[in-house]
Amino acid sequence: MAETTYNVTGMTCGHCVAAVRQEVGQLPGVQDVDVDLTTGNVKVISAAPLDPAQVAAAVDEAGYELNPAN
Amino acid sequence: MAETTYNVTGMTCGHCVAAVRQEVGQLPGVQDVDVDLTTGNVKVISAAPLDPAQVAAAVDEAGYELNPAN
Repeated sequence: MAETTYNVTGMTCGHCVAAVRQEVGQLPGVQDVDVDLTTGNVKVISAAPLDPAQVAAAVDEAGYELNPAN
Repeated sequence: MAETTYNVTGMTCGHCVAAVRQEVGQLPGVQDVDVDLTTGNVKVISAAPLDPAQVAAAVDEAGYELNPAN
Protein backbone atom coordinates (compact mmCIF):
# COMPACT_ATOMS: atom_id res chain seq x y z
CA MET A 1 0.00 0.00 0.00
CA ALA A 2 1.33 3.41 -0.96
CA GLU A 3 0.03 6.86 -0.08
CA THR A 4 1.35 9.81 -2.06
CA THR A 5 0.20 13.42 -2.09
CA TYR A 6 0.56 15.36 -5.31
CA ASN A 7 -0.27 18.98 -5.99
CA VAL A 8 -2.43 20.04 -8.90
CA THR A 9 -2.89 23.56 -10.20
CA GLY A 10 -5.88 24.93 -12.05
CA MET A 11 -8.81 23.36 -10.22
CA THR A 12 -11.50 25.94 -9.45
CA CYS A 13 -14.66 24.06 -8.48
CA GLY A 14 -16.25 20.77 -7.57
CA HIS A 15 -16.45 19.73 -11.21
CA CYS A 16 -12.68 20.09 -11.48
CA VAL A 17 -12.24 17.98 -8.36
CA ALA A 18 -14.52 15.30 -9.81
CA ALA A 19 -12.62 15.27 -13.11
CA VAL A 20 -9.26 14.79 -11.38
CA ARG A 21 -10.69 12.14 -9.05
CA GLN A 22 -12.09 10.23 -12.01
CA GLU A 23 -8.96 10.29 -14.17
CA VAL A 24 -6.50 9.52 -11.38
CA GLY A 25 -8.88 6.93 -9.96
CA GLN A 26 -8.72 5.01 -13.23
CA LEU A 27 -4.97 4.37 -12.95
CA PRO A 28 -4.14 0.70 -12.29
CA GLY A 29 -3.88 -0.10 -8.60
CA VAL A 30 -5.41 3.14 -7.34
CA GLN A 31 -7.74 2.52 -4.41
CA ASP A 32 -8.69 6.02 -3.29
CA VAL A 33 -8.22 9.62 -4.42
CA ASP A 34 -8.84 12.51 -2.05
CA VAL A 35 -8.75 16.01 -3.52
CA ASP A 36 -8.56 19.25 -1.54
CA LEU A 37 -9.77 22.03 -3.80
CA THR A 38 -8.39 24.82 -1.60
CA THR A 39 -4.82 23.56 -1.52
CA GLY A 40 -4.82 21.56 -4.76
CA ASN A 41 -3.51 18.58 -2.85
CA VAL A 42 -4.42 15.20 -4.28
CA LYS A 43 -3.82 12.26 -1.94
CA VAL A 44 -3.66 8.96 -3.75
CA ILE A 45 -3.79 5.57 -2.08
CA SER A 46 -2.62 2.73 -4.28
CA ALA A 47 -1.67 -0.89 -4.01
CA ALA A 48 1.91 -0.10 -5.06
CA PRO A 49 3.82 3.14 -5.71
CA LEU A 50 2.65 4.82 -8.92
CA ASP A 51 4.70 6.03 -11.84
CA PRO A 52 4.65 9.84 -11.46
CA ALA A 53 4.49 10.17 -15.26
CA GLN A 54 1.24 8.21 -15.26
CA VAL A 55 -0.22 10.41 -12.56
CA ALA A 56 0.86 13.51 -14.47
CA ALA A 57 -0.76 12.14 -17.62
CA ALA A 58 -4.03 11.44 -15.80
CA VAL A 59 -4.10 14.95 -14.34
CA ASP A 60 -3.36 16.36 -17.78
CA GLU A 61 -6.16 14.25 -19.24
CA ALA A 62 -8.54 15.82 -16.73
CA GLY A 63 -7.42 19.24 -17.98
CA TYR A 64 -5.12 20.32 -15.14
CA GLU A 65 -1.45 20.38 -14.35
CA LEU A 66 0.56 18.37 -11.88
CA ASN A 67 2.93 20.59 -9.93
CA PRO A 68 6.40 19.37 -10.95
CA ALA A 69 7.74 20.02 -7.43
CA ASN A 70 6.00 16.79 -6.46
CA MET B 1 -38.14 33.37 -31.70
CA ALA B 2 -36.84 35.05 -28.56
CA GLU B 3 -33.31 35.92 -27.55
CA THR B 4 -32.66 36.82 -23.94
CA THR B 5 -29.39 37.31 -22.11
CA TYR B 6 -29.26 36.44 -18.44
CA ASN B 7 -26.38 36.79 -16.03
CA VAL B 8 -25.20 33.93 -13.84
CA THR B 9 -22.82 34.16 -10.92
CA GLY B 10 -20.55 31.44 -9.60
CA MET B 11 -19.26 29.79 -12.78
CA THR B 12 -15.51 29.28 -12.61
CA CYS B 13 -14.56 26.85 -15.36
CA GLY B 14 -15.60 25.02 -18.49
CA HIS B 15 -17.37 22.34 -16.47
CA CYS B 16 -19.56 25.04 -14.92
CA VAL B 17 -20.36 26.39 -18.38
CA ALA B 18 -21.32 22.91 -19.57
CA ALA B 19 -23.55 22.35 -16.54
CA VAL B 20 -25.45 25.60 -17.13
CA ARG B 21 -25.70 24.93 -20.86
CA GLN B 22 -27.13 21.49 -20.21
CA GLU B 23 -29.72 22.51 -17.63
CA VAL B 24 -30.94 25.62 -19.44
CA GLY B 25 -30.83 23.75 -22.76
CA GLN B 26 -33.34 21.26 -21.41
CA LEU B 27 -36.06 23.88 -20.91
CA PRO B 28 -38.97 23.49 -23.33
CA GLY B 29 -38.52 25.55 -26.49
CA VAL B 30 -34.85 26.37 -25.94
CA GLN B 31 -32.89 26.17 -29.18
CA ASP B 32 -29.46 27.46 -28.23
CA VAL B 33 -27.56 28.47 -25.11
CA ASP B 34 -24.36 30.49 -25.34
CA VAL B 35 -22.39 31.00 -22.13
CA ASP B 36 -19.57 33.50 -21.64
CA LEU B 37 -17.57 32.34 -18.64
CA THR B 38 -15.73 35.66 -18.23
CA THR B 39 -18.85 37.82 -17.98
CA GLY B 40 -21.29 35.19 -16.74
CA ASN B 41 -23.63 36.14 -19.56
CA VAL B 42 -25.93 33.37 -20.77
CA LYS B 43 -27.65 34.08 -24.08
CA VAL B 44 -30.67 31.90 -24.66
CA ILE B 45 -32.47 31.52 -27.96
CA SER B 46 -35.92 30.01 -27.66
CA ALA B 47 -39.01 29.50 -29.75
CA ALA B 48 -41.01 31.76 -27.43
CA PRO B 49 -40.12 33.97 -24.44
CA LEU B 50 -39.20 31.90 -21.39
CA ASP B 51 -40.57 32.13 -17.88
CA PRO B 52 -37.71 33.73 -15.91
CA ALA B 53 -38.59 31.55 -12.93
CA GLN B 54 -37.95 28.45 -15.05
CA VAL B 55 -34.60 29.81 -16.19
CA ALA B 56 -33.69 30.62 -12.60
CA ALA B 57 -34.66 27.10 -11.54
CA ALA B 58 -32.53 25.55 -14.29
CA VAL B 59 -29.52 27.65 -13.30
CA ASP B 60 -30.08 26.71 -9.66
CA GLU B 61 -30.29 23.05 -10.66
CA ALA B 62 -26.89 23.40 -12.31
CA GLY B 63 -25.56 24.75 -9.02
CA TYR B 64 -25.32 28.47 -9.79
CA GLU B 65 -27.33 31.61 -9.27
CA LEU B 66 -29.21 33.74 -11.73
CA ASN B 67 -28.49 37.42 -11.16
CA PRO B 68 -31.86 38.86 -10.09
CA ALA B 69 -31.10 42.12 -11.93
CA ASN B 70 -32.01 40.21 -15.09
